[in-house]
Amino acid sequence: MAEPADDIAYTLGELAQRFALKLQGDAQLRIAGVSALDPGKPGHLSFCADPRRRAELAGTQAAAVVVNARDAQAYSVNALVALNPELAFYRIAKLFDTSRRFEPGRHAAAVVAPGAAIGAGCWIGPQAVIEEGASVGEACFIGPGCLIRRGAVIGPGSRLEANVYVGERCRLGARALVLPGAVIGGRGFGWVPTPQGWEEKPQLGAVSVGDDVEIGSNTTIDRGALEDTIIGNGVKLDNQIQIAHNCQIGEHTAIAACVGIAGSTVIGKRCMIGGAAGINGHIRIADDVVVLGMAMVTKSLTAPGVYGSGLPIQPVREWRKQVARIRRLPHVEQRLEEIEKILRLEPKPGDASEPDDI
Amino acid sequence: MAEPADDIAYTLGELAQRFALKLQGDAQLRIAGVSALDPGKPGHLSFCADPRRRAELAGTQAAAVVVNARDAQAYSVNALVALNPELAFYRIAKLFDTSRRFEPGRHAAAVVAPGAAIGAGCWIGPQAVIEEGASVGEACFIGPGCLIRRGAVIGPGSRLEANVYVGERCRLGARALVLPGAVIGGRGFGWVPTPQGWEEKPQLGAVSVGDDVEIGSNTTIDRGALEDTIIGNGVKLDNQIQIAHNCQIGEHTAIAACVGIAGSTVIGKRCMIGGAAGINGHIRIADDVVVLGMAMVTKSLTAPGVYGSGLPIQPVREWRKQVARIRRLPHVEQRLEEIEKILRLEPKPGDASEPDDI
Amino acid sequence: MAEPADDIAYTLGELAQRFALKLQGDAQLRIAGVSALDPGKPGHLSFCADPRRRAELAGTQAAAVVVNARDAQAYSVNALVALNPELAFYRIAKLFDTSRRFEPGRHAAAVVAPGAAIGAGCWIGPQAVIEEGASVGEACFIGPGCLIRRGAVIGPGSRLEANVYVGERCRLGARALVLPGAVIGGRGFGWVPTPQGWEEKPQLGAVSVGDDVEIGSNTTIDRGALEDTIIGNGVKLDNQIQIAHNCQIGEHTAIAACVGIAGSTVIGKRCMIGGAAGINGHIRIADDVVVLGMAMVTKSLTAPGVYGSGLPIQPVREWRKQVARIRRLPHVEQRLEEIEKILRLEPKPGDASEPDDI
Repeated sequence: MAEPADDIAYTLGELAQRFALKLQGDAQLRIAGVSALDPGKPGHLSFCADPRRRAELAGTQAAAVVVNARDAQAYSVNALVALNPELAFYRIAKLFDTSRRFEPGRHAAAVVAPGAAIGAGCWIGPQAVIEEGASVGEACFIGPGCLIRRGAVIGPGSRLEANVYVGERCRLGARALVLPGAVIGGRGFGWVPTPQGWEEKPQLGAVSVGDDVEIGSNTTIDRGALEDTIIGNGVKLDNQIQIAHNCQIGEHTAIAACVGIAGSTVIGKRCMIGGAAGINGHIRIADDVVVLGMAMVTKSLTAPGVYGSGLPIQPVREWRKQVARIRRLPHVEQRLEEIEKILRLEPKPGDASEPDDI
Repeated sequence: MAEPADDIAYTLGELAQRFALKLQGDAQLRIAGVSALDPGKPGHLSFCADPRRRAELAGTQAAAVVVNARDAQAYSVNALVALNPELAFYRIAKLFDTSRRFEPGRHAAAVVAPGAAIGAGCWIGPQAVIEEGASVGEACFIGPGCLIRRGAVIGPGSRLEANVYVGERCRLGARALVLPGAVIGGRGFGWVPTPQGWEEKPQLGAVSVGDDVEIGSNTTIDRGALEDTIIGNGVKLDNQIQIAHNCQIGEHTAIAACVGIAGSTVIGKRCMIGGAAGINGHIRIADDVVVLGMAMVTKSLTAPGVYGSGLPIQPVREWRKQVARIRRLPHVEQRLEEIEKILRLEPKPGDASEPDDI
Repeated sequence: MAEPADDIAYTLGELAQRFALKLQGDAQLRIAGVSALDPGKPGHLSFCADPRRRAELAGTQAAAVVVNARDAQAYSVNALVALNPELAFYRIAKLFDTSRRFEPGRHAAAVVAPGAAIGAGCWIGPQAVIEEGASVGEACFIGPGCLIRRGAVIGPGSRLEANVYVGERCRLGARALVLPGAVIGGRGFGWVPTPQGWEEKPQLGAVSVGDDVEIGSNTTIDRGALEDTIIGNGVKLDNQIQIAHNCQIGEHTAIAACVGIAGSTVIGKRCMIGGAAGINGHIRIADDVVVLGMAMVTKSLTAPGVYGSGLPIQPVREWRKQVARIRRLPHVEQRLEEIEKILRLEPKPGDASEPDDI
């Protein structure tokens, strides 16, 4: 089982050397943790990457900061100088994150089928269940209450935090990080309507997840109907996302919390999908698309770029009036037409065809 | 525990006979699985139900296809001819779905109270907990980590896949299929405001679920306050749906993922609710209503039909301009009024009353 | 383990005395339960707080009702008279809610680390896991399948219903009520973009939850990046809410189901957030703000009041025409401008600047 955080510390000089950063100030300064810039903590390292927060440098209680070369000149005290201070800071911060350390082993209250293959250096936690024919790669952490079903494959170096479900024959790549309550490979929602009600379409595909993927808490990814649902390498999924059967998510795409993606939709590489966006089924989203939060994606987006939709919040009276005004638009157009007639203007009624994207 | 999929195979003739379909071609052809039409797999059966995909018939690698009579003429090779090729195909496909087979029994790591009633032919998986007074019908699969609380009732032939929660006194009908992480019968969200903060309304009702209901992964259905929350026969619920206390969902209604339904709302029979729609509390939705995805259902829908709402996605600059234009509507109406005055037109200001449905 | 509900009963006189209510009618009347007013149940107590439901008083089958003084005059039978009948009724109703009774103890299938501190009077259910250094206060109910990680703290009198996850070093105050599947202290979704993909920001903060907080089924609250995510005293969270890292929720704020709150947002005290609202990151919401359901909160709300957004549901043809009309707004403005030119009116094109809140 993982060990509790202990008294880790590094000198500023050690950190400079290990991360190839320029040292400014006292190389022997002892750094015992990392903190936010404002207020900062004595003995800790902080950082400044946002020019608007530069003023906080003067007042921070942090023992040292990671800054760019320009800020380093202004900040006369102990510092590490980096081209990308945020990235350098978080790489250092990982040294202080002991939460993923563990000793290999298997808890007595884990249930591992005789025919499951468990790699070297794994920890299998209490109440975990690994069924027949499942395979867990080397150095995996399978936390309490996780369930790995028949024939499922977990790549080496993966961490299933707790209560994670991996369905039959589903596959996670190397270094997966899956948070509590995620369900990978539940049945896809497939039905044929009949006069007697809905008849089930069996979901015979699985879920195939690439390397270096994070899957957030209580996120659900359904297995495919006839083929697999596919999550590319480097994809990052936040909490409570729903990915329906037969979707494909391209490499390095990041999706924020509460997004729902309907079946068979294909999302490109390096996309960023904002929180609570809803994405229709059977559409395609190009590489390098950014969808803003709560957007209603009804149709394919074929070009890279930023997209959004929706009406922002207003005081309730303003909102009610706005809805009323939108509903009066037919009347506005009629009034315009009447005026145009009186003025003997050429009629310009605009394109009255209905939208083809909803 | 369920057995791994093995080498199932049927001849095309056997399939024709079992499902009363017309056989075209080689009755002895061995069918070892089912696949999508494009590209299809050698030795597998596929289908074509969509006229737009008819062209794929020529190129498929499938050994045989299920088609309608018209397509069968065009497709000269091995086929099964059906009135409804999709339905026929998926009925055949179920033969190849071995994922729900299981041997009756009880895992040593299951916890079953002495006073729980377990029917014949059930499997109770590891880490499952069945409390006093609970009742599980015949031939149920209670998967790993499921929790069935005091006095809860599970109908015969049901399958609780894994980590399913069934609260005290809640009842599932026959042949329920409940996916991982579903919570049936959590406390309803009921509070009385007081000057000292919120005071709890105890939730003394339960959840009553009919026969042949599917409940998706991480879906939550709250118990009623004084009476039960009711889910009718044949209802199909996708993942991450929230159904609040005292709702009633009519028979054979299907609800897509991420829908939220506030308390005491009554939804009719045979409705279809699109993904991520939000449905207000204390309203009624008639039978045979279709609500499109992401719709904002603020009021009762009293007639059958299709309903929707929302603004579809746009490039971000277009979206920003659109919001600005909507906010300029008061100005547009003022300008119209001024022109009408100048032209001595009868003033036609339109209905300025605020909407009563929000 | 909790005991099943038994034959609880009180006389109307006992209830009047215990809750300091005025008694009308038969003090010896036996009350064996509580029910809704319509139809009511013989032997049960009901209530009427809504003047629109006053007519139901005449027909109820309930043995007695809780009403205000005015309704008591009209209702000539057995009653308890209260200033706030709803509050009085639900306080009485709690007497009949036996679902939270339990006998202290520890199930043999619980896994409690030797170094975990468990207070007196706790129940630790089967399959629960409590790790090293965790601390559980007095009289807590830790239900089946709950996981309390290293160094986490659960305040006295708390109830973790089942399958609740409390991450490393996270803290719940006194009398917490956490429903099944809630995840408190999963990793925050923090990444630094690099040319090689996303690089992880370690999430070194925790989650700090005040006293008297309810957290609903499958709700997720992420741990902070460098500091804690903070949930104030008396906060009530419904099901399937997502609270991202470093948010702060003020005291006595109530949030309905399916709300998503992005990172670092601060919400004031006594707010009410409607179901499925989406709240942007890095914004502030003042005390006493009410946000209506499905609202899109893009910017800070600095004054108390009621806020909303969105377009309500319509029949699909009306909706499609409405979207088309909104898209024709540029054309409407052009037509207005042309008319104004012809009439030699001073041009009044309105504020064409784009909104700054999206």
